[in-house]
Amino acid sequence: MSERSAASFGERLVAQFDTFGQLCVGIDPHPYLLDRWGLSDDAAGLRQFGLRVVEAAAGRVGIIKPQVAFFERHGSAGYAALETILESARQAGLMVIADAKRGDLGTSVEAYGQAWFTRGSALEVDALTISAYMGLGSIQAPMVLAEQTGKGLFVLAATSNPEAFALQTARISFGSDAGRTVASSIVSGVGEWNASQGSSSAERGVGSIGLVLGATVDFSAFGLDLAAIAIAPASPILAPGFGRQGARFADLAQLYGAAAPTTIVSASRSILEAGPDGIVDAIQTQAAEVLACRG
Amino acid sequence: MSERSAASFGERLVAQFDTFGQLCVGIDPHPYLLDRWGLSDDAAGLRQFGLRVVEAAAGRVGIIKPQVAFFERHGSAGYAALETILESARQAGLMVIADAKRGDLGTSVEAYGQAWFTRGSALEVDALTISAYMGLGSIQAPMVLAEQTGKGLFVLAATSNPEAFALQTARISFGSDAGRTVASSIVSGVGEWNASQGSSSAERGVGSIGLVLGATVDFSAFGLDLAAIAIAPASPILAPGFGRQGARFADLAQLYGAAAPTTIVSASRSILEAGPDGIVDAIQTQAAEVLACRG
Repeated sequence: MSERSAASFGERLVAQFDTFGQLCVGIDPHPYLLDRWGLSDDAAGLRQFGLRVVEAAAGRVGIIKPQVAFFERHGSAGYAALETILESARQAGLMVIADAKRGDLGTSVEAYGQAWFTRGSALEVDALTISAYMGLGSIQAPMVLAEQTGKGLFVLAATSNPEAFALQTARISFGSDAGRTVASSIVSGVGEWNASQGSSSAERGVGSIGLVLGATVDFSAFGLDLAAIAIAPASPILAPGFGRQGARFADLAQLYGAAAPTTIVSASRSILEAGPDGIVDAIQTQAAEVLACRG
Repeated sequence: MSERSAASFGERLVAQFDTFGQLCVGIDPHPYLLDRWGLSDDAAGLRQFGLRVVEAAAGRVGIIKPQVAFFERHGSAGYAALETILESARQAGLMVIADAKRGDLGTSVEAYGQAWFTRGSALEVDALTISAYMGLGSIQAPMVLAEQTGKGLFVLAATSNPEAFALQTARISFGSDAGRTVASSIVSGVGEWNASQGSSSAERGVGSIGLVLGATVDFSAFGLDLAAIAIAPASPILAPGFGRQGARFADLAQLYGAAAPTTIVSASRSILEAGPDGIVDAIQTQAAEVLACRG
């Protein structure tokens, strides 16, 4: 833990992969899951749910990903529960990606970066998902802050939901990315960012600004070249879409090609539905499955 | 207040406009503003800042817009401060737009809708800003919830920052919106949604799902037709970009054309910089200026 301040997010991600493999366990306290776990749909239920997932994940996987929407659903009390869970995860040495899909511009998006990246902040995590509908330039402040603090960002690029297709395959008409799809423009902008950063990330081969690329996506239809994403410094990939959403771990290498070794395989409901008594087994089984698929 | 459950957001917005005009006062507790106000950069400072703005706004304007990023910056304590401010605003009869720019899909984005729209929720507001990078279809759950609960959404369409231009003018290649820009696709999708809703909104002429269209934007470059947006039921517009960002109230009619009467004129720093002693005067002066520009 003492090296955290010196290491970049990309370096720390590689270290987690080396120790635990690529599985990331979601913390998604849906009301139906709280009910199935015998927990109340309130801040106390969220806290117990999240602490149990952290306990089950610790030492078995390297990364967890709380879905912030389910905590915001209970307001400040929900956030207090999230803060307790984050503290527990830090103590357990888990890397945490806050799935918040924040986005804004100027000092507002900088404030989001400060909320999630500032050392000692109650919401401090290792990485944050972010949306760049207002252009990749709109999120430059948290990109800078991520590099300064050893944190990471995962920018929505090509997502796993079918209703995203029309927007994310739209063709840029102006500027240096003219002719590219929206998704491809974000992918190339993130790649350029990582390539422009200092040597420490590049030496380890993985940058600190990553991409959300869903496992159910036909990347060629978005004009995306996974081999280019994998060129060092690679943009790490956060991959939803496995498990209940349809993609299989066994297809990791086929789906992500050269980028498979730097892809975070995210699973939530397929693990959480095992319940508080079955979750340790579910995590162990799925972590081993992902490890067996390593490219 | 007893009619709130029956009235749509569009109807309530028209009522606020009729009584107070179109000015919306931002609550953006930037660290530099907290310092200028003599307040601490913590949850207590946020609370005092926000309560003072609510007190100054009550009875002088109809709408306030807290920027959620500055509250999230202080975690659960910041959210608790926001909840106190929201309670005060409800008591004062102010309409509140939470500027949160949330966005996700499936049950996650539904959870955001529940957080901000559920009656009695600590975070209950009248409307929420939202981002549809994952397609307008990805935010259908909160659109439905808004209609059911008498709340509103403002979907990012053409924003006021220059770095948004390339993405938001990209041309859709597939589906029924092929050939449209991304911004135009969102505008037309929101318009179709409003037109498809029940008669109560249509009778008053204003729908409950609105658009964020920045005042510094050249709408023709985005392929946007403001006259079409204004056809009943109009999609209400939330317009940042006035004051410090460059646009002038006097240009409201010229900028928004036929849609000017259904445009919320948002000002933040130009009011907040007046400080705790000058804010009442700043609000009165600017509200009168906006009223004088009424089309």
